[in-house]
Amino acid sequence: MKLPSALDALTEALRCLPGVGPKSAQRMAYHLLQRDQAGAARLSDALHTAINRIHHCSQCNTFTEQETCEVCLSSSRDRSQLCVVETPADLLMMEQTHSYRGLYFVLMGRLSPLDGVGPRDIHLDLLEIRLSAGEVKEMILATNFTVEGEATAHFIGELASSRGVRVSRIARGLPVGGELEHVDSGTLAQALIDRREY
Amino acid sequence: MKLPSALDALTEALRCLPGVGPKSAQRMAYHLLQRDQAGAARLSDALHTAINRIHHCSQCNTFTEQETCEVCLSSSRDRSQLCVVETPADLLMMEQTHSYRGLYFVLMGRLSPLDGVGPRDIHLDLLEIRLSAGEVKEMILATNFTVEGEATAHFIGELASSRGVRVSRIARGLPVGGELEHVDSGTLAQALIDRREY
Repeated sequence: MKLPSALDALTEALRCLPGVGPKSAQRMAYHLLQRDQAGAARLSDALHTAINRIHHCSQCNTFTEQETCEVCLSSSRDRSQLCVVETPADLLMMEQTHSYRGLYFVLMGRLSPLDGVGPRDIHLDLLEIRLSAGEVKEMILATNFTVEGEATAHFIGELASSRGVRVSRIARGLPVGGELEHVDSGTLAQALIDRREY
Repeated sequence: MKLPSALDALTEALRCLPGVGPKSAQRMAYHLLQRDQAGAARLSDALHTAINRIHHCSQCNTFTEQETCEVCLSSSRDRSQLCVVETPADLLMMEQTHSYRGLYFVLMGRLSPLDGVGPRDIHLDLLEIRLSAGEVKEMILATNFTVEGEATAHFIGELASSRGVRVSRIARGLPVGGELEHVDSGTLAQALIDRREY
């Protein structure tokens, strides 16, 4: 007696989700087939659409369905300021403060040598090209205040100063060990205003 | 500034998974798009295949890709015994004890009036038809030893006795509050041997 192979395949495929082990995957598979086939169909389509439509902005590296994202295309943004964040969610948090009118660079991660994440994995080659173009006069480091986030900020800060770009870090108004994504807009706005030379 | 709509749709679709809230869904969506597009494509296909291929066995109600599952079709099983379990995973656990040669009925759930799960939701109409056919002489109740599982066993036990079917319950060798899925085969085999009149 074996489980149907399509069920086995689904359980196995669900394990690609972060934090989902064999038992959770089995529970999810049963739930979808038994109680939410419509949800499963929607998820299948959403995955298919997302991997086909979404790619990285040619300028700032965030997720977008266009060649270049709407922030990078906007004529009302200050092109001399570049804010470096770890994820698209962080970019969104920054936008919600309504305190920043410059551009962004999204690392899509953080330096983490123990996990094998080096400078190329967070697209610092792209960032270097951007800095070399000379348009950017100030870089605002808005990586998380975690160990990896701080190390990443330090590394990128060195990179920018060596090219004569003024570097600042958002103020440590955020709790140490905290993450941008979980903070309220007011605190983040304050941290942006209080940024200091790096 | 909004997230791309395909990304929004994916995040929303991931929330159909049990135990996944808005933050986890967002983390999963980023993870899939950034680090595991191959996994996302596999998951999309597996969902699609599973919802198209898998349905319920016409006899025992478990998941199968055929009209009738291989256990129900097997000529070597004792057709006078019917073991009632909550899920296909429980059926699999029973099979792994190699101590049971009868047939199964899979409820695909348990009675839970507070969650709106009544007799029809666990397919007791099908079970009644099965019992009325007269082939089944003994019913073995192997629902979980949780409050809902016990209540379900009680309800189904009454249903079977009223039709003159002998009813037994797997022995309480399992820890109270425990679930079949998480027990070792030896304990479950013992509980099967020690089943008592209900």
